Amino acid sequence: MKVVIDVFGGDNAPNSTVLGSIKALNKCADLKMVLCGDEEKINEILKTQNYDATRIEIIDAKEVITNNESPTSAIRTKRESSLVKALDKLRLDEEVVGFVGAGSTGAVLTGAFMKLGRIKGISRPALCPILPTINGGKVAIIDCGANMDSKPINLCHFALMGSAYLKKVFGIENPRVALLSVGVEDEKGNELVKSTFPILKEMKNINFVGNMESRDLLSGNYDLIVTDGFAGNVLLKSTEGAILNLLKLIKKEIKSRTLSKIGYLFMKKSFDNLKSVLDYNDKGGAVLLGCKKLVVKSHGSSGEDSICASILQVVDMHKAEVCKVIEEEINSCNLDEILEKLEAKNE
Amino acid sequence: MKVVIDVFGGDNAPNSTVLGSIKALNKCADLKMVLCGDEEKINEILKTQNYDATRIEIIDAKEVITNNESPTSAIRTKRESSLVKALDKLRLDEEVVGFVGAGSTGAVLTGAFMKLGRIKGISRPALCPILPTINGGKVAIIDCGANMDSKPINLCHFALMGSAYLKKVFGIENPRVALLSVGVEDEKGNELVKSTFPILKEMKNINFVGNMESRDLLSGNYDLIVTDGFAGNVLLKSTEGAILNLLKLIKKEIKSRTLSKIGYLFMKKSFDNLKSVLDYNDKGGAVLLGCKKLVVKSHGSSGEDSICASILQVVDMHKAEVCKVIEEEINSCNLDEILEKLEAKNE
Repeated sequence: MKVVIDVFGGDNAPNSTVLGSIKALNKCADLKMVLCGDEEKINEILKTQNYDATRIEIIDAKEVITNNESPTSAIRTKRESSLVKALDKLRLDEEVVGFVGAGSTGAVLTGAFMKLGRIKGISRPALCPILPTINGGKVAIIDCGANMDSKPINLCHFALMGSAYLKKVFGIENPRVALLSVGVEDEKGNELVKSTFPILKEMKNINFVGNMESRDLLSGNYDLIVTDGFAGNVLLKSTEGAILNLLKLIKKEIKSRTLSKIGYLFMKKSFDNLKSVLDYNDKGGAVLLGCKKLVVKSHGSSGEDSICASILQVVDMHKAEVCKVIEEEINSCNLDEILEKLEAKNE
Repeated sequence: MKVVIDVFGGDNAPNSTVLGSIKALNKCADLKMVLCGDEEKINEILKTQNYDATRIEIIDAKEVITNNESPTSAIRTKRESSLVKALDKLRLDEEVVGFVGAGSTGAVLTGAFMKLGRIKGISRPALCPILPTINGGKVAIIDCGANMDSKPINLCHFALMGSAYLKKVFGIENPRVALLSVGVEDEKGNELVKSTFPILKEMKNINFVGNMESRDLLSGNYDLIVTDGFAGNVLLKSTEGAILNLLKLIKKEIKSRTLSKIGYLFMKKSFDNLKSVLDYNDKGGAVLLGCKKLVVKSHGSSGEDSICASILQVVDMHKAEVCKVIEEEINSCNLDEILEKLEAKNE
């Protein structure tokens, strides 16, 4: 089982990606890594490390795709880039089961769409990150930005894929699937939500619990939030932003008062604990579900621990046969039946 | 100058609304209040208070519209409700300049749409709440849920209205207007954002600074965020939810350790300060912009201070002639010109 990594993607690359890869190798005996990027620079880091050289393969790639480039044209023209070569490797080498990258989200998604195919029956792949909840659990959001404009059928596929992922990889038996809206009432929402709601309600293979409000994202009341990529991105990033800004504000407040600084010393353990509950870094990246092979997008600011977690996430997903399970779920679902029924009703 | 209030809207009504009204009367000498609701119950609260009876008018209304009712049918059928009677008073009495209510948002919005007209030239009214930023400033979001599905022209009107409001009521000279998207780059976003961007860019009367990411909402880098009502609602409520949940988590962490509890005593001043920075309650309600008269929707959980702040907000808006200014801004804007130019280009 091989995992390929774009060594030159991310703010802390190539150190984070090479060291994260070695960490993952040490944690998983049946794993091999394919490192894609400037060979010389990769070797420079490798030679300072202790690792099993037989389990690392390097693909030399001199170009790098940055955040400032148009994803589509970058994927098309930069054929010698670490990202394009990594995705080509993923597509062509049967032993490579998945990809990890921390570079431009747009480029990773566009590259994956263009290079890998979709799982049969799935209309659109979707990005599915996981966040910690305040009761120590987790909540997944699908889609968080792989698709900017979606139709109800896309959202139904997202619900199926996310649900299968949570069941198989995290052992959540009957994931509570909610539809992001502006209130919990059945009739609330925009046109997309109102058209999607009756389909989700009738779908087999998912445990649909109704509409939810964004303020309850971290409550622990839901396992999977289904939404279009634009609203999902707003949901994820405003939550992240609010938490980061609040912590910044607390820090500033504490620093401005001597008594508070003393108080902080007493509370340090509490703050450390808080940090570890909120730390998205240990929890790997956002999974792209719906492509024929596994793709994990690590946060741009990922350090080696986060990269390692993303790689192990690919391993777990491969072992859980996520792609195969998604195909089975879509095949055994009653979606066509529901759509026919709704159409007949509307005529 | 009279302001009418739905005394029976909100979780803490009628105490919060009656006491909040008296507080506002005491703070503003040229204000009169019209209290709409069950006269007996209102008088029961009033008789315990010290107030100038000549400045209070009561409209008896026995029915109440709750959060669980369909807004449209409630407004249509409950003609004896405190909300409907308050909005009728607003519409018919020339001296009444604005309305305050803390009840069902849907009912307040639907009622305002149905009873008041739109300002000439404005396609859709929009809800515009204000949040505190981490540098002690404020940021407004328009629309936060008055319209679920919007067109580019609606968003352009939102930008104009919000900008005029910030200029006139808060004295912000040249409000920085940003379009909510999934990245700051010009080409990022869904179809709505991509179609709205080029219009906002050419518009006179607003200072458009480009796309923004939801994680920067509280950064202080923007004065006004323009978005459709669905995404705006997600932005507002996920920010609120994240902050409330994080504070809950901090509290739980502190309570679980004796040392932390001691630490908290040293830091109490810091936490109090934090609370006052984050307190949305003192800052009044969300303004509905675009109707012929002023409407402020107070938070459902509003206490008397928050109700008082909302009433004073109406007073400030009236003195700043917000409705008139919005009409002037839309008249002097080059929107038609831009739309013609864009259409010609697309042909």
